[in-house]
Amino acid sequence: MEVNTKRLHERLDALARFGRNDNGGIDRSIGSQADRDARAWLTAQWQSAGLNVRTDAIANLWARVPGKPGAPIVLGSHHDAVPDGGRFDGALGVLLATEVVQTLLENRVPTRHPLEVVSFTAEEPNPFGLSTLGSRAITSKLTPEQILAAHDDTGRRLADVIAQVGGNVKALPFERLQPGEKAAYLEPHIEQSRNLYDAGLAVATVDRITGIYREWITVEGEANHAGTTTMPRRHDALLAAAELALALEATVSRVNRSDVVGTVGKMDVFPNAANIIPGRAELILEMRTPDRELRSRLLEEFTARIEAIEAKRGVRFVRQVNLDQAEVVLNPTVAAAIADGCQAVQGKPVSLVSMAGHDAVHMSGICPTGMLFIQSVEGISHSRQELTHDAEIDSAARALLHAVLELDQTLPV
Amino acid sequence: MEVNTKRLHERLDALARFGRNDNGGIDRSIGSQADRDARAWLTAQWQSAGLNVRTDAIANLWARVPGKPGAPIVLGSHHDAVPDGGRFDGALGVLLATEVVQTLLENRVPTRHPLEVVSFTAEEPNPFGLSTLGSRAITSKLTPEQILAAHDDTGRRLADVIAQVGGNVKALPFERLQPGEKAAYLEPHIEQSRNLYDAGLAVATVDRITGIYREWITVEGEANHAGTTTMPRRHDALLAAAELALALEATVSRVNRSDVVGTVGKMDVFPNAANIIPGRAELILEMRTPDRELRSRLLEEFTARIEAIEAKRGVRFVRQVNLDQAEVVLNPTVAAAIADGCQAVQGKPVSLVSMAGHDAVHMSGICPTGMLFIQSVEGISHSRQELTHDAEIDSAARALLHAVLELDQTLPV
Repeated sequence: MEVNTKRLHERLDALARFGRNDNGGIDRSIGSQADRDARAWLTAQWQSAGLNVRTDAIANLWARVPGKPGAPIVLGSHHDAVPDGGRFDGALGVLLATEVVQTLLENRVPTRHPLEVVSFTAEEPNPFGLSTLGSRAITSKLTPEQILAAHDDTGRRLADVIAQVGGNVKALPFERLQPGEKAAYLEPHIEQSRNLYDAGLAVATVDRITGIYREWITVEGEANHAGTTTMPRRHDALLAAAELALALEATVSRVNRSDVVGTVGKMDVFPNAANIIPGRAELILEMRTPDRELRSRLLEEFTARIEAIEAKRGVRFVRQVNLDQAEVVLNPTVAAAIADGCQAVQGKPVSLVSMAGHDAVHMSGICPTGMLFIQSVEGISHSRQELTHDAEIDSAARALLHAVLELDQTLPV
Repeated sequence: MEVNTKRLHERLDALARFGRNDNGGIDRSIGSQADRDARAWLTAQWQSAGLNVRTDAIANLWARVPGKPGAPIVLGSHHDAVPDGGRFDGALGVLLATEVVQTLLENRVPTRHPLEVVSFTAEEPNPFGLSTLGSRAITSKLTPEQILAAHDDTGRRLADVIAQVGGNVKALPFERLQPGEKAAYLEPHIEQSRNLYDAGLAVATVDRITGIYREWITVEGEANHAGTTTMPRRHDALLAAAELALALEATVSRVNRSDVVGTVGKMDVFPNAANIIPGRAELILEMRTPDRELRSRLLEEFTARIEAIEAKRGVRFVRQVNLDQAEVVLNPTVAAAIADGCQAVQGKPVSLVSMAGHDAVHMSGICPTGMLFIQSVEGISHSRQELTHDAEIDSAARALLHAVLELDQTLPV
């Protein structure tokens, strides 16, 4: 039994046409025409493969092999894209899932579990400020009230957009997934880091997904005249923020591990005028690692460093934890089946940590969950330069097929 | 002969009422109702003192002792204020000038030169982006075209605002001051630094006004995923900008002179999102010193430092000089007369450098120019906390009177 890689590549080409811009990037954000077109096209593909398609309350798309009741093994990812994004992030996972399920159906392979494909709504950051929207909503991590309150900068309501693509936010309480309702969730996804690329390997299993910790920090200094205030008299909020950002980098870099990163990605300066010493800066600090104990130690070290900055510069750092998303240890049985799939196609299992969040984080609260990472050239993602070669895609399809067949035997019905 | 300090304090109180906000600060920007009210009030004060009042093409207010032809000695400053500003910056200079001229007139002191008071239009930074507007325009440093093109964020045209306060931008070419048209310009102004406050002295003469040098710098790094990009693989534009700002501080601070300062007051980060490594930062660097040769050396040192940052971080700094306003050496005869005035009132002459720009910078291109600095408590300015005590104001009035009488003798008619 072989997956139909030709059909898989044709589908990747077809899906990449929805939202392709003049730069060759993909614009396929939630509610866009491209999103609607992609949904219609996916639905048609699944229906022609003989699957039953359903749109849930948050507009996640589910396609199930008909005829068998019970908790299914679910395969999938998401079909939306960041602005000017690539054609593989999300889309590849949905189409690998589609291909594997269709292959099993066409080959009339009897499985103990029903099989289902999913494409989640709005996994990527979007103008409504709610990423991994579909998986969070359907696993009870978002309330209908939070979703009903969300709107973009132009005043467009998220609930209206969800309705336009077939959802109904008010029905969400009646459709939420319960533990036991799915037998497992497997998400194939491009790696986004360069571990596989550097190792020259196609695929890996994921054993953990990083925790994400964010603080909003306000630096309170003293605005003053940039000409008449001598250097020793200054309490420059921008310089204090600069030292803070560098202290974070130094703290995190010293550990020298690929699964610990720290970033100041957002910073605003006030009053932000050439001739006024900045009196205030606002920034967001992010730290990611799956190692919670290490994170605590690094935050302690960072705190000591920035207290020294406060004392030296006569400024104040006001810190507020804004996000503390726990790391996720993926299900060992699912991870092992995926590792066996990797072993089967490349002679070697590889286990990685995911440093990005995924729908799998939220599905892991509902059912045994695993991820299959596929090599991405130079680790580039969220960019039109995103590239996964055909050979790695084919290996991923075979590894996923292997993993599903193994899990179908291992997991209780 | 004594200045009427009671009248002077009453006028300071009266002028401070125009634009006073609920915080006790002064909002008196160009074209505001408070600006118009202040102009009407000043005009009435001068007329009742027996002066002839005229509004020029850029709406500077001139009040001249009638009866004597020829090039006048001009005293004055400006009456506008920064948002939530203080009651002394600018206003004190205009009212000291008014008091001294009125005292001479009331005492029928014959002078060799005509005397004139001026209050310049829009000295402070304003929504139209043109500070020291009145003095620059009337000394040919701005063209009517530049002024006609200026508007604020709401689309309000500067030329319309000037017309509302009695000016006529199109008449500017016919009214520009020519060298020799004024005998001298003396500007009394609060110090804005804390030299006089720390020394416990009331007044000083100013011998030089700082040069102001600005660069717009773009930091070009590489935007990337804040989770999946390991620390050694990053080209973070924010961290490079942070090191640049600290390099400027280190370069300038090492000199340890009160007349050399460097500031990054404005900085914007792109794309400015918590989960994306900054790919670009835009900032404005400012360096002020009256010592041009030192400035060149410091810029060389700074350049060497930031070239090391570029190499280390794999980023690029694109630098563009945006302003190179030369330092101004004030007229020695005028400065000496003001120093003699200081000596007369406090037994000690003091000579300072101005680290802020002033209308005097531009008037110095037209006639012999000097400045009288008055102590400001803790050097605070551009703030509602701005404070100059009565005793220092009285000393300033006497020093200015002394200087004017001396200059009237010294300067050729």
